[in-house]
Order: sequence, then C-alpha cells, then structure tokens
Amino acid sequence: MGVFEGVVPAIATPMGQDGRFNEAVFRKIVEFNIEAGVHGFWVAGGTGESVLLDDDENMQVASAIVDQSNGRAKVIMHVGAPTTDRAARLAEHAAHVGADALCCVPPFFYRRDDDDIAEHYRIVAGAADLPLFVYNLPGATGVEITPGMMAKIQDCVPQLKGLKHSASTFANVRTFAGMGLSCFIGNHRLMLPAMTIGACGCVDGPLNVFPELWVAIWKAYRAGDLQAAEAAQDKASRAYEMLSAGGGFHSVIKVALSARLGVDCGDPRPPGRSASDAQRTQIVETVKSLV
Amino acid sequence: MGVFEGVVPAIATPMGQDGRFNEAVFRKIVEFNIEAGVHGFWVAGGTGESVLLDDDENMQVASAIVDQSNGRAKVIMHVGAPTTDRAARLAEHAAHVGADALCCVPPFFYRRDDDDIAEHYRIVAGAADLPLFVYNLPGATGVEITPGMMAKIQDCVPQLKGLKHSASTFANVRTFAGMGLSCFIGNHRLMLPAMTIGACGCVDGPLNVFPELWVAIWKAYRAGDLQAAEAAQDKASRAYEMLSAGGGFHSVIKVALSARLGVDCGDPRPPGRSASDAQRTQIVETVKSLV
Amino acid sequence: MGVFEGVVPAIATPMGQDGRFNEAVFRKIVEFNIEAGVHGFWVAGGTGESVLLDDDENMQVASAIVDQSNGRAKVIMHVGAPTTDRAARLAEHAAHVGADALCCVPPFFYRRDDDDIAEHYRIVAGAADLPLFVYNLPGATGVEITPGMMAKIQDCVPQLKGLKHSASTFANVRTFAGMGLSCFIGNHRLMLPAMTIGACGCVDGPLNVFPELWVAIWKAYRAGDLQAAEAAQDKASRAYEMLSAGGGFHSVIKVALSARLGVDCGDPRPPGRSASDAQRTQIVETVKSLV
Amino acid sequence: MGVFEGVVPAIATPMGQDGRFNEAVFRKIVEFNIEAGVHGFWVAGGTGESVLLDDDENMQVASAIVDQSNGRAKVIMHVGAPTTDRAARLAEHAAHVGADALCCVPPFFYRRDDDDIAEHYRIVAGAADLPLFVYNLPGATGVEITPGMMAKIQDCVPQLKGLKHSASTFANVRTFAGMGLSCFIGNHRLMLPAMTIGACGCVDGPLNVFPELWVAIWKAYRAGDLQAAEAAQDKASRAYEMLSAGGGFHSVIKVALSARLGVDCGDPRPPGRSASDAQRTQIVETVKSLV
Repeated sequence: MGVFEGVVPAIATPMGQDGRFNEAVFRKIVEFNIEAGVHGFWVAGGTGESVLLDDDENMQVASAIVDQSNGRAKVIMHVGAPTTDRAARLAEHAAHVGADALCCVPPFFYRRDDDDIAEHYRIVAGAADLPLFVYNLPGATGVEITPGMMAKIQDCVPQLKGLKHSASTFANVRTFAGMGLSCFIGNHRLMLPAMTIGACGCVDGPLNVFPELWVAIWKAYRAGDLQAAEAAQDKASRAYEMLSAGGGFHSVIKVALSARLGVDCGDPRPPGRSASDAQRTQIVETVKSLV
Repeated sequence: MGVFEGVVPAIATPMGQDGRFNEAVFRKIVEFNIEAGVHGFWVAGGTGESVLLDDDENMQVASAIVDQSNGRAKVIMHVGAPTTDRAARLAEHAAHVGADALCCVPPFFYRRDDDDIAEHYRIVAGAADLPLFVYNLPGATGVEITPGMMAKIQDCVPQLKGLKHSASTFANVRTFAGMGLSCFIGNHRLMLPAMTIGACGCVDGPLNVFPELWVAIWKAYRAGDLQAAEAAQDKASRAYEMLSAGGGFHSVIKVALSARLGVDCGDPRPPGRSASDAQRTQIVETVKSLV
Repeated sequence: MGVFEGVVPAIATPMGQDGRFNEAVFRKIVEFNIEAGVHGFWVAGGTGESVLLDDDENMQVASAIVDQSNGRAKVIMHVGAPTTDRAARLAEHAAHVGADALCCVPPFFYRRDDDDIAEHYRIVAGAADLPLFVYNLPGATGVEITPGMMAKIQDCVPQLKGLKHSASTFANVRTFAGMGLSCFIGNHRLMLPAMTIGACGCVDGPLNVFPELWVAIWKAYRAGDLQAAEAAQDKASRAYEMLSAGGGFHSVIKVALSARLGVDCGDPRPPGRSASDAQRTQIVETVKSLV
Repeated sequence: MGVFEGVVPAIATPMGQDGRFNEAVFRKIVEFNIEAGVHGFWVAGGTGESVLLDDDENMQVASAIVDQSNGRAKVIMHVGAPTTDRAARLAEHAAHVGADALCCVPPFFYRRDDDDIAEHYRIVAGAADLPLFVYNLPGATGVEITPGMMAKIQDCVPQLKGLKHSASTFANVRTFAGMGLSCFIGNHRLMLPAMTIGACGCVDGPLNVFPELWVAIWKAYRAGDLQAAEAAQDKASRAYEMLSAGGGFHSVIKVALSARLGVDCGDPRPPGRSASDAQRTQIVETVKSLV
C-alpha cells in the first residue's frame, strides 16, 4: 500500500466567481503544499466542504489532484455521501483516476447501528479496492467510531488501513495504533502529543495554509529532538490561533490561502458564511505578520 | 395560507425493484391515507428518506403527491439539502407544482450559528413564497431549534408558519404555540398530550400505516371527550409498539405498509437495512392482528 | 400502601438567619399547602435543597412534616445521599417518625452501573420497608433511569411503588405507567399532558407557591373537563413563567413563598445564590399581581 | 508556593473491616509512593472516594498524610463538598494541619452558573489561604471548567495556582498552561503527550499502584529522551490496561494496592462495589506478573 504518514493537509476546495469548483486555483494550492514538503492530502474532506460538493465536483477534484501531485504526495480521496450507492460510485471513480487511498465518513443524518456502518464501509471499499481510512468526525456525523466499532469494521473490510481521529477521545489514538491502524490525529494543535502515543501524523485544515509549520514538527520529531518539536508545535498552534480569530473555519482558511498564495479561493458555499470585509482585513494582516 | 392542523402522516417513499422511487405505489399510499381522513402529508421528510433521495426524485415525489391529493389534503413538501442553493431549487419546484407549504431541516453536517441558520431559511423560503415549517429534528441534524433561535427565524422569514417539533424538549410545544406558530408534535405517542398544551396536530411515520388510529384521537379531542381521546391515544401507541419490535424504523414502515395495502413498497435505501425474513413475517402478522 | 396521586408540591426547606433549617416557617408552608388542597409532599428533594442539608437537618425536616400534616397529606421523604449507608439511615429514620413513603435519587458523583444502582435501592428501601419512589433526575445525578433499568430495580426492590420523572424522555411516562408504577411528572408545565398518558400526578417546586393553580388542573381533569383542564394548566404555567424571570430557582421559590405567606423563608444555602434586591422586588410584585 | 509538578498519585483511601478510614494502611501507601519517587499526592480526590467520606474522615486523612509525608512530597488536599460552608471548613482544617495546597471540585448536583462557581472557589480558598487547584472533573460534577470560566475564577481567586484537567478537551491543556496555570493532566495514559503541550505533570489513581512507571516517564522526559519517554508511557499504559480488566475502578485500585504492599486496603464504600473472588484472583496475578 505504501506508507501513509506525516503532514497531510485537509485541502480546501476553492470556488470561482460562479460558486463552482475552481480547478486552476486548486492546482496552485496543491503545488504550494507539495513544495512545502507535505506527505499527502486529505481531499474533499471536512475542510474541503465535502458533502456540500456535487458528485461531479468530487470527481473533478479527484482527477485534478492526482494529476497535479503526480506521485509526489499521497492522495487520500474523500468519498462519503448520504447513500451507500453514491459513496461507492465516488470510490470507484477515485480508484479509476489513480487516488492512493479513500477516506469516508460513516453514514450520517440517520443514526445507523454498528452492523449498518460496517456494511456501508464494506461496500464502499469494495467498489475501489484501495486502502481505506475511516473518518472519525462525530461533530459532523453524530456517530463516534469507538475502538469496538472499529474492530467490527476491521473484521469486515480487508481494505481498512487507518483513520483520521477527530473525536474528543484523544487517548483512543493509542488504542487504534495498537490495533495496527495508521491513525492520523485530526487536530492541528495535537500533532506532537498524538505522535508520542502512536499517531502516524496529522490531518487538518490549518496545515494547508502554513504547511511548513507542521513539516517542522514532523522533522524535529523524527530527529528525536523533543525540545525543537515542542517549540515547533507551539509555533504552529499559535499561528492558527491568531488566524482563527478572523471568523468561521472555512472563510478563514479560504481568505488566508488567498492572501498567502496571491490567488482568489472564493467564498465558502452557503449555508457557509463569507468573511466580512473587516474579517478579511484582519486575516490578511495576520498572514502577512506570520510569513 | 389555509389551516395546517390535525393528522399529518410523514409519508414513506416506496422504492421499486431497481431501488428508485416507485410512483405508482406512492399514489396508492396517498389515496389510502386520504380515504382514512388525514388532513395533510409531510412529504420526503425523515420517514420519506429525505436526504437519501436525489433531487430529481424529490421533485418527482412532489409532483406526484400534489397531483394525487388534488386539494383533498395539504401537501407540506420537504426541501432540506446540504447546500442552500439545492434546497432553494427544491423549494422553487415545490411551489411550481402546487405544494401547499414547505418544510426544511436546518443546515446539517457542519455546525452553523443562529445567523447562518436564519439566513438559510430566508433564502429557501424566499425561493418559493409558500408557508414554511421548520423541521426541528436534532437527532438527525445535530442542532436543536430553541425558542430563541426560532424567534430569530421569525424575524427574518416572513413565510414562517410553524414547525414539526421532534426534539426532547417537549414543554417547548407550549412556548412555540405561544409565539403564534403552528406546532406539530413529531412523536406519534404524544399527539394527545401535545395538543393539551397547544400543538396543532401530529406529524410522524407510524401515522401513514394506521391513519385511522390517529384520526380517532383527533376526533375525540375535538369533541372534547377526554376519556375517548386517552383511549384512542393508548390504542394507537400500543399498535405501533407491537409493530416496532419488527426491526429498524424504515423497514418496519415499508413492510407494514406493503402488508396493509397489498403492494410492494420495496426496501429502505442503503445504508438503511432491509428487514430479514423473520422480521417480515413478524411485521405482517402484527399488521393482520391489528386491522 | 394507600394512594399516591395528585398535586404533590416539592416543598422548600426554609432557613433562618443562622442559615439552618427553620422549622416554624416550614410548618406554615405545610399548613398553607394542605389548606389549598394538595395531596402530598415531596420533602427535602431537589426544591428542598436535598443533598445540601446535613443528615440531622433531613431528620428534623422529616419529623416536622409528619407531625404537622398529621395524616392530612402523604409525606414522601427524600433520603438520597452519597453513600448507601447514609441513605439507609435516613430511610430508617423516616420510617421511624411515620413518613408514608421514601424517595431517593440514584447514586451520584461516581457513575454506577445498573447492578450497583439496583443494589443501592434494595438496601435503602429495606432499611425502612416503606413504599419507594425512584427520583429520576438526570440533570442533577448524571444518570437517567431508563425503563430497562427500572425493570431491574422492580425485580430487586419489593417496596418499589413509582417514580418522579424529571428527565427529558417525556414519552416514558406511558412506559412507566404500563409497568404498574405510580409516575409523577416532575415538571409543573406538564401535569395535564402527562396525565393524559398515564401519570398519576405532578411533583415540582412551583406547586408549593401556588398550590391552588395545580389543584384546579387536577379537579378539572378528574371531572373530565378537557377545556377547563387546559385553561387551568395554561394559567399555572403562565404564573410560574412570570415568577421565574426573577432569578435562580431556589431564590425565586423562597422569596415568592415569603411574600405569599408573610414569613421569611431565608436564602438558598450557598453555593446557591440569594436574590438581589431588584429581583426580590420583582418577585414580590409578581406574586401580588397573581393572587 | 513552591513547585507543583511531576508524578502526583491520586491516593486511595483504605478502609478497615468496619468500613471506616484505615490510617495505618494509608500511611504505608504514602510511604511506598514517596520511596518510589513521587513528587506529591492528590488526597481524598476521585480515587480517594472524596465525597463518600465524612467530613471527620477527610480531616483525619489530611492530618495523617501531612504527618507521614513530612515535607518529602507535596500534599494537595481535596476539600470539595456539596455546600460552600462545608468545603470552607475542610479547607481551613487542611491549612491548619499543614497541607501544601487545596484542590476542590466545583459545586455539583445542582447546576450553578459561572458567577456562583467563582464565588464558591473564592470563599473556599479564602478560608485557607493556600494555593488552590481546580478539579476539572465533568464526568462526576456535570460541569466542565472551560478556559473562559477559569479566567473568571482567576480574576476572583488570588490563591488559584492550577488545575487537574480530567475533561475530554485535551487541547485545553495548552490553553490553561498559556494562562500561567500549573496544569496536571488527569489521565494516566496521557502524561507524556500532555507534557509536550505544557502540562506540569500527571495526577491519577493508577499512579499510586505503580508509581515507578510514571516516575520513569518523568525522568526520561526531563532528560529530553523522546524514545525512552515514549517507551515508558507505553509500558505504564499497558500495565494499567491489564489491571483494569479486573473490575470497577476503586476495587481494582484497592485490591492491586493490597497485593502490591501486602496490606488490606479494604473494599470500596457502597454504593461502590467490591471485587468478586474471581476478579481478586485476576488482579493479584496481574500485579505479580508486572512487578
């Protein structure tokens, strides 16, 4: 399967003036992150406005990032959808265009039991035969993948490779790692602490704005330099704390990326809210002060 | 706007062998319920597999029920979707084909603040200019519409008419009614108690299987006959308790409807799970014992 | 056991200038409520500052209310405590002085499993051999007594008679009543709706300030007069809504009772907060406008 | 104030055959932990059965540990109680006998607002004038101390020194440390990761059974040896995972301590449940295999 680890930005999905996916700007964000040394991408996930994208947009995003990254970084493509059939079709497409792995939220809106969730993953993974990452995101889906539930998925889904853990049960990182899973911590503030108990890296949105800050954590950690790793984590956490004062999550990420790369990433798709002018000014100034 | 009240089944969306919307069977369910005396329908809502339907299916459902009910019962059409734009297009279509009202879940998956939610409703309602019912369904959406949040929606959305209240804050029925809203209780076991504190009726899935049982509650209540109303509520609650032992919500409703009407409503759309053979037998026998 | 039903105020525990239990004023509150026609008292429960009382105060309260009510109203004495031993000693005392029944919260602070909870109730009830009411108050105890858990308690505790249901699962009233339990609804706004699905009455704090308003609901309900019962519930709910604008729960109850009876009920025991002067004025004026 | 940091076991409260505090055995546990190199004790806290102790037992515990440790380890004495007055009296006693600091849960059972909580801490801390640690234990108290709430406490309570953080918001460790607070992580599995983002040490129950395992983490961390620290954390976490299979929290701790020290720590106080014979055997064998 290859190695999935390190700094894996949850990449934003830029929109054009028409409110649709802007492929040209998206390729620039990919390129910028690869040049900064990231190891992979978590694509069309929570930061990438996931279930707000149409299926054809999801497929266009998949094609674009595989082509642009061209083997230089792992592409972990999100294929979660309200129905099993739609998720399976997105999975099939991701495999077809050459993604390295899938990620997928569990079924959402309606509450499903463990058997339904495992069966959903079995069908979706089977449609692609790529390594599968479970997306443990209870704040959005209403269901937390516990270690017990994960064991059931592990029994049913031979493609299961790991997960992004964005739940509040931080100590489960150790449990999941002990099950042989590649566990990315889904919180940019917790990359270093998570790695000390077995996480293989970090997936989160702030990483695609300042990838170099999390790459620095990774390098210090791999070098066994505890003090440098702590300093790097502190610097990265502090940078995004300053930025996040500028409004909602998606608008902050998009305005900051626009400022940093000199492009126009557009607005969050409604019901996501755009930044106000005052927020834009604050975000742009913060970005300037940080790079 | 006309009066929205009484027994309003959350109607199921039957599927054919191909797993797509079965319009012919759907029209039979509509007809059966109207003949039983229901006052309206809550269409493509939670029971109707809502966000699991494609947009074109939602539109086909809307056209079919308006045509079939032909003014004999109110059509309250669900138009909730992950993006504001998609919900607005469904709303526009519902108005175009002649629905009597809209209902809509708040934005889900991503958590939105009160302003975002009110703005979402403003745009969706404005696309149709029909009476709007908020769908208060925190178990699915992760957000509860509180009285304070509803007051903000009331300020922004002139089309706001009422809500279906499917949250655990039962006493809020009185608060919402006191705000001038038509509040349907979203729990088939609580029709009578809710009406004693101001609810205008009941919306729920079990009502489309045994509509006559809830119509009996309504008639006794309107006649001021407390003892008969209590007996009717008890009979209705007991009937669905027996039925619900037969498996998951959607499969029970579909198998029971199939048995009662002598049609094939098909299976829940995956990740919803179909009834097992044993469950089917149990449900069919329960239906037979109850009618 | 006798009949436990109707209007059962959760009586306040008045305090003197020294911050200790004020028995003289307490007896006046008891008398006032009996004269208004209440059927019983829920004593030293949530409204009565329960676990903030010392054990000797709990015992003094028990002795005083049994003596004062003198058979004219049922005394349901709260004996919940952090340890099983302390609760059992309070239960033994309550039986000794002549209480009619016990009520008891499940173990709190530490989370216990179903077996531990049932065993706790078995020992406490066995120490008194009085009818036992479970106090289902998850907002305070962190544990909700579900119907399944109650079935386990019913198996182990021969003295189990019923419960006060102060959880958000309103529809469980019907389930508990169906198990043969006397279920008091623990929400003053929901007396009428709860009785339509099987509740035997209402226990709550507002009832000891305006007992006549809930007695009116009871009488209309028993007369089968639905319209009068709804009007009475509406009047009672509205009265306490006005009052509750005046501050925290315990301070509102104590200041309102003081105003109504012309006595001094004292302040809530810290960390409960006393009403401010402005709040006192508002509460007093509201009481005057309502009687 | 001196330095509060490092390995701080939440020490158990052993009971005699009569179910009361066993001071002789308690002194042996203190001595064993000091010899293993711990830096302090968290006394009569969650592991020490806190609110299940009578006030006179709490005082006896305080006197015994100050006398036994005799300046060799910091004594952080828990004084939380249902009323402000009782907590203040325990605080005064702790100061009188020479404890180094206080710790205190926020008010529990009744939900209090931020002002009430801050006022509670102000009075309790003022009664002793010792450094104060907030005990952030929402699983028991129902209230989580957020950074915003802590800022309010910091404003009102000059004695505030830090906290034990036993909430699921792990990333708040960084926030609390950034506020100048000494933040102990309240989870034995997370000592190392917490220290990488600013925690000053660890407080938890498993530490008093195998103190040397957490002392090893501390030493490796202070030496900057990342690999050794990870290995030590892994060994410690693994040890307690094996042990915890043997039953409920308090019974496991007490049986394990009894086995390790060759004493009888007695049973948990009911409603806490004692270990079964099979569980005892399993725990004893696990302890033997680990030391």
